[in-house]
Amino acid sequence: MTNKIKKIAVLTSGGDAPGMNAAIRSVVRTCAYYNIECAGVYRGFQGMIEGDFKAFNARSVKDIINKGGTILKTARSTEFRTPEGRQKAYESLKKEGIEALVVIGGDGSFTGALQFNKEFNFPVMGIPGTIDNDIFGTTHTLGYDTALNTVVEAVDKIRDTASSHNRLFFVEVMGRDVGHIALNVGVGAGAEEILIPEENLGLDRLLESLRRSKKSGKSSSIVIVAEGDKIGKTVFELKDYVEEHMVEYEVRVSVLGHMQRGGSPSCFDRVLASRMGVKAVETILEGQSNFMVGLINDKIQLTPLENAVKGKSKINKELMRVSDIMTT
Amino acid sequence: MTNKIKKIAVLTSGGDAPGMNAAIRSVVRTCAYYNIECAGVYRGFQGMIEGDFKAFNARSVKDIINKGGTILKTARSTEFRTPEGRQKAYESLKKEGIEALVVIGGDGSFTGALQFNKEFNFPVMGIPGTIDNDIFGTTHTLGYDTALNTVVEAVDKIRDTASSHNRLFFVEVMGRDVGHIALNVGVGAGAEEILIPEENLGLDRLLESLRRSKKSGKSSSIVIVAEGDKIGKTVFELKDYVEEHMVEYEVRVSVLGHMQRGGSPSCFDRVLASRMGVKAVETILEGQSNFMVGLINDKIQLTPLENAVKGKSKINKELMRVSDIMTT
Amino acid sequence: MTNKIKKIAVLTSGGDAPGMNAAIRSVVRTCAYYNIECAGVYRGFQGMIEGDFKAFNARSVKDIINKGGTILKTARSTEFRTPEGRQKAYESLKKEGIEALVVIGGDGSFTGALQFNKEFNFPVMGIPGTIDNDIFGTTHTLGYDTALNTVVEAVDKIRDTASSHNRLFFVEVMGRDVGHIALNVGVGAGAEEILIPEENLGLDRLLESLRRSKKSGKSSSIVIVAEGDKIGKTVFELKDYVEEHMVEYEVRVSVLGHMQRGGSPSCFDRVLASRMGVKAVETILEGQSNFMVGLINDKIQLTPLENAVKGKSKINKELMRVSDIMTT
Amino acid sequence: MTNKIKKIAVLTSGGDAPGMNAAIRSVVRTCAYYNIECAGVYRGFQGMIEGDFKAFNARSVKDIINKGGTILKTARSTEFRTPEGRQKAYESLKKEGIEALVVIGGDGSFTGALQFNKEFNFPVMGIPGTIDNDIFGTTHTLGYDTALNTVVEAVDKIRDTASSHNRLFFVEVMGRDVGHIALNVGVGAGAEEILIPEENLGLDRLLESLRRSKKSGKSSSIVIVAEGDKIGKTVFELKDYVEEHMVEYEVRVSVLGHMQRGGSPSCFDRVLASRMGVKAVETILEGQSNFMVGLINDKIQLTPLENAVKGKSKINKELMRVSDIMTT
Repeated sequence: MTNKIKKIAVLTSGGDAPGMNAAIRSVVRTCAYYNIECAGVYRGFQGMIEGDFKAFNARSVKDIINKGGTILKTARSTEFRTPEGRQKAYESLKKEGIEALVVIGGDGSFTGALQFNKEFNFPVMGIPGTIDNDIFGTTHTLGYDTALNTVVEAVDKIRDTASSHNRLFFVEVMGRDVGHIALNVGVGAGAEEILIPEENLGLDRLLESLRRSKKSGKSSSIVIVAEGDKIGKTVFELKDYVEEHMVEYEVRVSVLGHMQRGGSPSCFDRVLASRMGVKAVETILEGQSNFMVGLINDKIQLTPLENAVKGKSKINKELMRVSDIMTT
Repeated sequence: MTNKIKKIAVLTSGGDAPGMNAAIRSVVRTCAYYNIECAGVYRGFQGMIEGDFKAFNARSVKDIINKGGTILKTARSTEFRTPEGRQKAYESLKKEGIEALVVIGGDGSFTGALQFNKEFNFPVMGIPGTIDNDIFGTTHTLGYDTALNTVVEAVDKIRDTASSHNRLFFVEVMGRDVGHIALNVGVGAGAEEILIPEENLGLDRLLESLRRSKKSGKSSSIVIVAEGDKIGKTVFELKDYVEEHMVEYEVRVSVLGHMQRGGSPSCFDRVLASRMGVKAVETILEGQSNFMVGLINDKIQLTPLENAVKGKSKINKELMRVSDIMTT
Repeated sequence: MTNKIKKIAVLTSGGDAPGMNAAIRSVVRTCAYYNIECAGVYRGFQGMIEGDFKAFNARSVKDIINKGGTILKTARSTEFRTPEGRQKAYESLKKEGIEALVVIGGDGSFTGALQFNKEFNFPVMGIPGTIDNDIFGTTHTLGYDTALNTVVEAVDKIRDTASSHNRLFFVEVMGRDVGHIALNVGVGAGAEEILIPEENLGLDRLLESLRRSKKSGKSSSIVIVAEGDKIGKTVFELKDYVEEHMVEYEVRVSVLGHMQRGGSPSCFDRVLASRMGVKAVETILEGQSNFMVGLINDKIQLTPLENAVKGKSKINKELMRVSDIMTT
Repeated sequence: MTNKIKKIAVLTSGGDAPGMNAAIRSVVRTCAYYNIECAGVYRGFQGMIEGDFKAFNARSVKDIINKGGTILKTARSTEFRTPEGRQKAYESLKKEGIEALVVIGGDGSFTGALQFNKEFNFPVMGIPGTIDNDIFGTTHTLGYDTALNTVVEAVDKIRDTASSHNRLFFVEVMGRDVGHIALNVGVGAGAEEILIPEENLGLDRLLESLRRSKKSGKSSSIVIVAEGDKIGKTVFELKDYVEEHMVEYEVRVSVLGHMQRGGSPSCFDRVLASRMGVKAVETILEGQSNFMVGLINDKIQLTPLENAVKGKSKINKELMRVSDIMTT
């Protein structure tokens, strides 16, 4: 391995996700393995601007592999969107002797990283971390698998009370632009209907589906609703609408909210984070950069950051069919 | 044991709670142990009116001790509030040869049971099941301990994301009339402030407390808010108020909702349910009735239903002091 | 879809695994969707011999998607290994009007199914269910993902006590022939060393590795040991050996055992089971058979049962490298 | 409050238990509340001898309330059993200006603390922390409630596989001298038989009970065995014995082991720890000492350490009756 790089920095940016700490740990330990210095940057790009760095070694990342959130904290930085902000960030890195940057985050973070790379020819690598799984170039983002389990367990709990009371529940889950969480949890929790951004089921078909379910003898129902679903109503409006049109149902709403983001990462997310961290550092050490590390066909593979940012994560059509069959 | 009773019925009523199934199982198995017939009544008092009974034996309650919700379902019955409804219910029970009734539920359910007892001199026993722990005559209602764990785990998850983003969260938890869940979870999750129905902290003191916490170097905060808190604002209004008065904080809201009711009961709730079921049946077999079975001083003890209904569950003052010390 | 088949049977065989119930549910609901009859066979091939069938419809599989184990039970059948046994099984199926069979199980179950198919030209389909993930033709068997989470959570708990006492733990996990669980959990739990069947680390290198870890300041250590590891000693002998050669360490052993098999399936396993069940039934309805349904490159794909039985699941070499880097 | 004490030390000793960190946090934060200095002592009495102290303030105990194990570590100290060792420990404390000591641990730790108090008239307070709940003067020790949940969840998982295979399992749980865990988990998990140190069921009655259970149609069974049960056989010998005498049963063994000690504390344990820490410090500040803080009749109460050490925790007779009724 040609290895001229002496020091790498790692930061987390955008919404936090379980597995980010495991990825930080992997970056740090891989640097240690290759005798490279590693700096942790606090509070994402904003911390980079302010020079909020700390030298990290294997001991710094002790006992974090199973912790939710990010020990490096994360923040949105409006200053980094300005040329002046990025200039300051560049100077901070130079001053610190940092020669490459690993950004753990989502779409927006990668866009910022790419812009930074273009302006200063500074090597960057991306590790996709977001529970929404809305990033092109990887079948799984860090935190997504954990969030699926968190949400499916919450819906199992809601099912307990729904079936005790013969109620209908609209459960809102995360997913503004993509329905990965809604679709998978909907299938995994045996939901009666699933509303996702990729498809507008329509109010009529929703009612029809609920009526069919009721007629078939089901006494309780769960409808999973992605935040960004296209039916054009909030979960609270859906409740009112259904109560108006199906008097036989007592309807309740549950908005799962931020608890979906937290928690100890699943084994899958911890392993994926470890694999991605190794690949990110090794790619830099091989003299390459500006890639996102992703999981494609169950293998760790690189996608140019440019493509990752432009591309769109697509919903699994086969799973939509499975969902139709399971909910009929 | 003088034992003239031949058949006992059991029902669940009001909001469901983890441990109700374990209590049903205990009632049924205790009847089997004493060679008494047992009938399960579906959908609470409404099912009693409609004669929705089923003979239950040990096999009927197989594998339910660890299930949330209630296999007997629960429903609110407006008909049972009328003399005609109760008359029908009485006839149903007579027709079925049922001679005593065990009601697993909350305050409202006990009021109904007591009224029924008075009108028809029909022996009833109460087992307190509700996550709110708002019943006089027992330090713990069924489901309360489980709910504490469910809520504290959810708040732990929210803490992950709160501290990653340096945010303040208002987390609304169940408790319309009493603050048991809020107070215990607040202490257990290390919340910075706790708002309960028993006390009006006041907006000024809330702000002051948050400012002190911020000043002391805390970068994130969790405020636990009981549904019925007395500060006079919803969690969403609290968010707006604090954001207006403390510009340095990004505030978020999480309403935990119905997932608090579900889930597999804790070991404590399963054991308590088993103890209560035995006591309820044995009390009937001893020729007594119209008591609620409760846990007092760690022992299973009886309280006249009359008192249980009139009395009020009180917040633990010592724990409020502990909370003050822990959050300062 | 050409559809001459009128009735399909489904059974579970071999060791149980989380997700088997979700797969049963999917087979049954897919049959319902296509208006095909479906029979559940109890206790695997033995139940098939004895004609232990039951008509299954959508209601029969209500509320099982999130349950561990298998409602159809499983058993090993020595009788099915004889031509007479298989003849009886064939007659049972014929008598019942069953025209195709879906077998959810592992390697041994598929071998039996294949033999049965060859002798009677009876259409069979396989769905891989086993926590060991030791089946060719799928990157994930049902139950594997759940087991990873169960084991990693148990090891997290052991870590708590290991680091409180500065102890070394040998933790034995399932995996007689393959080290998938050990390797993934080892990486996911941040173990200091991992012993798998695919590699003989050797006692010297183990000691060396533990000494290096100790020297680097680590005060506690976890070594994950697959049941079938090649080092030639049981976990109890390993304990004695290390205590003899590294007096500075207090060593403890934990054999996780059968709890690894149980529990509510992860969202991943529930979704995978749903996808596999649909594919198994649709393949039969398309007039094909004798395939195993698997996940390859994140897509549901078919592998001839013949190949599935002959092939070998291989350990991920890239992950072994990651593991080396993470544990150095 | 008369308050001449200026500095308090806190240590954990004996086996670790969930909730110890919450208790450390409470002691530290209560000291901060009363403007008292607080020192953490690492590795129990051994660290006290070696002067392994660290000044602790509110920030030192950030984010530990929900962590298993003990950040102060724990160790057994043979040196502290000698007068010389205790003399050194006393000098370490004096040198550091420490005027009172809070010991979080079990029976053995309290005996040491009491001896130390007698020799040097040094004020000590005990907080009972051990999962075994084997301490006189409190209905609940720290970690006990958490362990009950950990164990009951593990047994639920074993039940999944037991009932899928129609097997009998002997599950060994912690409890060398007392059967609290075994009895409560046995009832909570719906075990068919429970073997505890307080009672010798006898092999004949065990067989009889298993045969009755089998005859009643139960196809699987769980027997919970406390480590210190009095039947005179290990779980492995029990397996052999039963297999020999009941050929119809496939028997398996599971020894749950050290995972029972770890994990995030339950809400109950976190709250109890917070209450106990406050009381321990306030008692010292009131000029009293040599008490153990306990929970009696649901209230925080003091028991002279002398009595706590001499007394014996007793099994709940009423629960044993409940267990008999539930398992018949």
